[in-house]
Amino acid sequence: MKTITVNRSVTASNDLDADALRQELKEKGITLINLMSSPGSGKTTLLSRVITDLKSEINIAVMEADIDSDVDALKIESLGAKSIQVHTSGMCHMDAGMTRKSLEEMNADDVKLAILENVGNLICPAEFDTGAHKNVMILSLPEGDDKPLKYPLMFEKSDVLVITKIDTKDYFKFDMDACKERVLKLNKDIKIFPVSAKTGEGMDALEDWIREILIKG
Amino acid sequence: MKTITVNRSVTASNDLDADALRQELKEKGITLINLMSSPGSGKTTLLSRVITDLKSEINIAVMEADIDSDVDALKIESLGAKSIQVHTSGMCHMDAGMTRKSLEEMNADDVKLAILENVGNLICPAEFDTGAHKNVMILSLPEGDDKPLKYPLMFEKSDVLVITKIDTKDYFKFDMDACKERVLKLNKDIKIFPVSAKTGEGMDALEDWIREILIKG
Repeated sequence: MKTITVNRSVTASNDLDADALRQELKEKGITLINLMSSPGSGKTTLLSRVITDLKSEINIAVMEADIDSDVDALKIESLGAKSIQVHTSGMCHMDAGMTRKSLEEMNADDVKLAILENVGNLICPAEFDTGAHKNVMILSLPEGDDKPLKYPLMFEKSDVLVITKIDTKDYFKFDMDACKERVLKLNKDIKIFPVSAKTGEGMDALEDWIREILIKG
Repeated sequence: MKTITVNRSVTASNDLDADALRQELKEKGITLINLMSSPGSGKTTLLSRVITDLKSEINIAVMEADIDSDVDALKIESLGAKSIQVHTSGMCHMDAGMTRKSLEEMNADDVKLAILENVGNLICPAEFDTGAHKNVMILSLPEGDDKPLKYPLMFEKSDVLVITKIDTKDYFKFDMDACKERVLKLNKDIKIFPVSAKTGEGMDALEDWIREILIKG
């Protein structure tokens, strides 16, 4: 078996826009989290749980980025949080300009925590700084413990890894220790929270982390 | 809740290259399948089952495209099929030129069926013709029945949808009828095969379809 490397595309940099947005939000006292994962990893279910648990103490707004449909934003709105559906016209990621426009359209100046649910994709979103203060990625247990080997950049770029659907651990072969080891080898500073949004297991630790990172002011 | 649309990128066309590759392979009697899905949907597990079941009657070769790692190609090779690991240097999809190079590097002229396991991604691979004769996509049951709503292009571009991990149906809320209806609304000609590579359920119908589409000669 041979291994070959084929050519890569060059992406435009939007780092300056992202830095400016990050600073402006900080001055307004708004913390922005960029939430990334594969399709179907449970981003919206996790968010629904976080909103239900924290909405009495934190004013939260959610941007739902998708190629199409508005099912996620409707779900978030039904929980009483401010939400906006962002259609990317086929684009596979969000960048800082798209995030800024979404925040503006949502009139989010009164919120403390803004969450961008990025397009479901383990690759492209990791390449574009959205202006977020923290990058959080989700890996769901059914996806398998080999994902850090195949999609290293997203694990490198994330401040937090949430391992979701841990209530299915008797059903899928998933070596939690091996997975953690692979992740920490890519990113020794990443925090890892195994959770089940269904049963609530592990949610307290994740929600404590969210409280800690909120910008004061 | 508002819905807004943000700008899309323009992708370079590689349609001519793809048509040429498709024709050349046809003349050599090689059928090329492009297999697409999210990360962790069970592409490699499904392929392993297909190879095990069909290798005595069909000479099969597999191109494993990934950002990094070679775990999948090693697994395929251990089953006795010809395989090559293709690293895309961070690129989120395969195109016709990359597929041609991979086939050349593998010396696949003696095979009847070449399978490209595209990068795990429900978005970008659907935008690039690889030169394949058939596009096959996988949706795993844990990903959810709403995926056709969110990632319509891939469902539109595929000749076949394989719904995998159906052995987990008692564990996940997945409305099979609603899912099929959503898919057929996007693509009335798509064939749908619900399967479990673990238990073998549904594999016969999928493998019969593979036998049918092989180029004669």
